[in-house]
Amino acid sequence: MSSARATAHPAHPGPAATVRAFASAWDRLDFEAILAWLAPGIRYENGPLPPLVGHAAVAAYLQGAGPFEACRWELVAIAEDGTRVLTERVDHLRVRGTTIRLPVMGVFDVQQGLIHHWRDYFDLAAYRAQWPA
Amino acid sequence: MSSARATAHPAHPGPAATVRAFASAWDRLDFEAILAWLAPGIRYENGPLPPLVGHAAVAAYLQGAGPFEACRWELVAIAEDGTRVLTERVDHLRVRGTTIRLPVMGVFDVQQGLIHHWRDYFDLAAYRAQWPA
Repeated sequence: MSSARATAHPAHPGPAATVRAFASAWDRLDFEAILAWLAPGIRYENGPLPPLVGHAAVAAYLQGAGPFEACRWELVAIAEDGTRVLTERVDHLRVRGTTIRLPVMGVFDVQQGLIHHWRDYFDLAAYRAQWPA
Repeated sequence: MSSARATAHPAHPGPAATVRAFASAWDRLDFEAILAWLAPGIRYENGPLPPLVGHAAVAAYLQGAGPFEACRWELVAIAEDGTRVLTERVDHLRVRGTTIRLPVMGVFDVQQGLIHHWRDYFDLAAYRAQWPA
């Protein structure tokens, strides 16, 4: 899709800025903003869970997760490799009064200001062990 | 340690080149080369397992792992954020004739050509499920 990239709207932020804005939307739990950053054909791989493909499937999953009462993506490191943005984060997620601390790395493939591919890497058992009963 | 960095030997490769050389040493299972890239005070966090600190502890752990009959670090993406190198990889590890496929992201803090901090993120259960009986 190099021709598509070449005609990207100049107002689109770069890949890392897009991911920072996506993180900021999570910090506000602003799902309208979160979902606006995802491409129609988004592929989302949440650790070892089955991949989700397509905006509707990912939107339904994200809006049904938790539900989270608060969220903060602590960006420890962020770097670009072409269209890919690599992050090291600690995600802080509050569920029923309990704050879960999730050390995670994630990669985002960003084209024309939209996230086409999102893969997060973390230990699922360590995450689940923190959920309130 | 900015003064120490300022006097780094000019022959040291940059952070990403150091990590590529470290990956190459793994591909050869050349433990002498692998261990030579680790700083004396190396801190190694292997997913959710307890962190290891110090060259001797990390060396003993790495040399005792597997034992692996073959290894290949498939570097999917690699990017620098200052002294930190972020990687997305698929590690292919052969144990007793079985090749384990481990999707993983890792961050390496590299100073003066040595790895001071190494954190890998992956799902431990998905890794262990692939081990031969």
